[in-house]
Amino acid sequence: MNDAEQRDSADPLKDYRTRFLLPEGIIYLDGNSLGALPRHVKSVMEETIVNQWGSDLIRSWNAHEWITLPTRVGEKIAPIIGAGEGQVVCADSTSVNLFKLLTAALGSNDTDQQRNVIVSEQGNFPTDLYIAEGVSSLLGEDRARLRLVSDGDFDTAIDHTTAILMLTHVNFRDGSIQDLPRLTRLAHDRGALVLWDLSHSAGIVNLDLDANDVDLAVGCGYKYLNGGPGAPSFVYVNRRLQAAMQQPLSGWMGHRQPFEFSTTYEPADGIDRFLAGTPPILSMQALSAALDLYQDLDIRELRTKSVRLTEYFIEGVANIPELTLASPRDNDRRGSQVSLSHPDAYAIMQALIDRGVIGDFREPDILRFGFAPLYNSFDDTQRAIEILIDVVTNRHFDDPRFRERQRVT
Amino acid sequence: MNDAEQRDSADPLKDYRTRFLLPEGIIYLDGNSLGALPRHVKSVMEETIVNQWGSDLIRSWNAHEWITLPTRVGEKIAPIIGAGEGQVVCADSTSVNLFKLLTAALGSNDTDQQRNVIVSEQGNFPTDLYIAEGVSSLLGEDRARLRLVSDGDFDTAIDHTTAILMLTHVNFRDGSIQDLPRLTRLAHDRGALVLWDLSHSAGIVNLDLDANDVDLAVGCGYKYLNGGPGAPSFVYVNRRLQAAMQQPLSGWMGHRQPFEFSTTYEPADGIDRFLAGTPPILSMQALSAALDLYQDLDIRELRTKSVRLTEYFIEGVANIPELTLASPRDNDRRGSQVSLSHPDAYAIMQALIDRGVIGDFREPDILRFGFAPLYNSFDDTQRAIEILIDVVTNRHFDDPRFRERQRVT
Repeated sequence: MNDAEQRDSADPLKDYRTRFLLPEGIIYLDGNSLGALPRHVKSVMEETIVNQWGSDLIRSWNAHEWITLPTRVGEKIAPIIGAGEGQVVCADSTSVNLFKLLTAALGSNDTDQQRNVIVSEQGNFPTDLYIAEGVSSLLGEDRARLRLVSDGDFDTAIDHTTAILMLTHVNFRDGSIQDLPRLTRLAHDRGALVLWDLSHSAGIVNLDLDANDVDLAVGCGYKYLNGGPGAPSFVYVNRRLQAAMQQPLSGWMGHRQPFEFSTTYEPADGIDRFLAGTPPILSMQALSAALDLYQDLDIRELRTKSVRLTEYFIEGVANIPELTLASPRDNDRRGSQVSLSHPDAYAIMQALIDRGVIGDFREPDILRFGFAPLYNSFDDTQRAIEILIDVVTNRHFDDPRFRERQRVT
Repeated sequence: MNDAEQRDSADPLKDYRTRFLLPEGIIYLDGNSLGALPRHVKSVMEETIVNQWGSDLIRSWNAHEWITLPTRVGEKIAPIIGAGEGQVVCADSTSVNLFKLLTAALGSNDTDQQRNVIVSEQGNFPTDLYIAEGVSSLLGEDRARLRLVSDGDFDTAIDHTTAILMLTHVNFRDGSIQDLPRLTRLAHDRGALVLWDLSHSAGIVNLDLDANDVDLAVGCGYKYLNGGPGAPSFVYVNRRLQAAMQQPLSGWMGHRQPFEFSTTYEPADGIDRFLAGTPPILSMQALSAALDLYQDLDIRELRTKSVRLTEYFIEGVANIPELTLASPRDNDRRGSQVSLSHPDAYAIMQALIDRGVIGDFREPDILRFGFAPLYNSFDDTQRAIEILIDVVTNRHFDDPRFRERQRVT
């Protein structure tokens, strides 16, 4: 056995790989963008489509409890992010949920007219910033002003005008981890709320939202949670804040009694007030089924394997002088992704994909490789390293067909 | 052949019924709440799950054009609602889309500070009113005030303060049709915009949005369009308004260049600016496949059969003195639904469901029967009439098990 094989045979999570449908001949290192398909999701979806929708039709809202699906999915996600009961619900997209939380947070602060600033950082995932811009142009700068930090100096940026600190926990571009406990405390010490985007963290790093007294969080269902393309997002609202927070996307699913069809809106008591319209049941059922994989998992075990995989990859490519590590070398500061920079990153990624190694490219010069410890092995990693070395060292990426920009993702 | 059989045999749409999976022994008259499953959706979804998500993984955004799915689904819906190209897109839920359009419409009027009123009616679908309330409490009464009309007198209600008239075309409770051409003209004559909720109209009545110069519309994918439970919604924005309207749920999918990951939001030029976050691909693919049934259909033919079915039903139950027709008797004023009122409506509906006739109940005393001309027959209708007569005349609904309130939908 070579080194990678030895590591795989000692891996306590190695059997999880068989629970995914993975294409032959592909080394898939893009689970940070779209998680792979858990095998059992196929039959769950067939049951949902044929028996629930097809045969039981409208009765399924009761018979198959579609009506509580957003709550049930939320409760499956809660332990994965360190949240107790009644604080997580599944709904809409991450962008829409960010809007709900930002507007609700600004509203809950409206006794304190001084606090109108949303502090975030330049390198945050664009949709987070776009949504904050949308809130600001809708409410006006008097009520919502976005302040972007580019040097990481939140200590200076957060002051008596800050309503909320909105950050992404694991950065999409370089995989670096923000210091959630410290920054949450900092925001609280200055009298501000904190909103964490956990899209690249949930299901892969330890998150103790309750223990850290986090206020608000959102996250995505289709990356490490393997919920399928565009799977609905989740919302976390700390129990102590729920009663004071009203979000303006006050659709009927967030009403105290949706089927009374009363004319005036009364929000549900708990986390359900963060629901809006009718949920996309098919997409949510796929996510619900995928989450069952996490039932017996310890996130710390996942994190341990994730760190070993990314470290193994970093060490394996360290001797390619053309590539620069764009992710933190410190294991504690890196999520489950390794980013490398190279001026020809786009063409290199196309050449890798052509050879069956799937990662992705991010502007302007970033190669991203995501490691999903549930289905990626050390053998995958070793083979990806060898192919990457060959492609870069022998400049296979110079082939003109790899330089044409066609891909949108 | 009896009368119903004769009508079925002469029905030009009769073959469409075989294209749906319908449960044995059930007369399904709730397609106005959840449309039935088109058979081919099952294989499309298996292909989407196994081959697209499972095998092609992240590459499917390009290879299977997931990235243009919201636009492509919009273009399939456009001819069904009488809209030309580039004006319809599929995204989010109806509630969320109402929020986008109301806020964008109020914003586009902000040179005219006098116009801050959203006119709607008391009997509108609750989520429409809840969303307008949400907009109003977020923006304040100075910018957004909801005025509800309870007597149908829009001529008086719409004045120089009206920013937008927001109405549902076919009422969810009684199936009555609003006069879209007249009310659209009335709003325009007074300098206001109009927003139509087409949830109970799309795919079942003639809608000439462009010809009537409608400004804005939303609608639902899971009723007569048969897109599956919680299928995403659609948004129509008249081409002449698109450039001036910016909606605040400015997620990355509405950006001019989503994959440039720039820090500032720039809306896409056309209808795509009404997209927000990543779409729920599985749910949207089911809707996309279901819409293919409409490809060779003439909505006028559907409407003709729909009117005949509802009229046949109304005539069949006219001799039950205990039941009062709650829908308009005038065919031109009725959608594809018949509502009947009875003090024991809840128990009667439970007794009907027990006998295999599925309609639904709406507070406080309404029995709703929806007729979907693609899969409902005159024979269905005849048998439903007979069972309803038996249940009401012989008071089968007095059985205590039918009186217990358990169902949520």
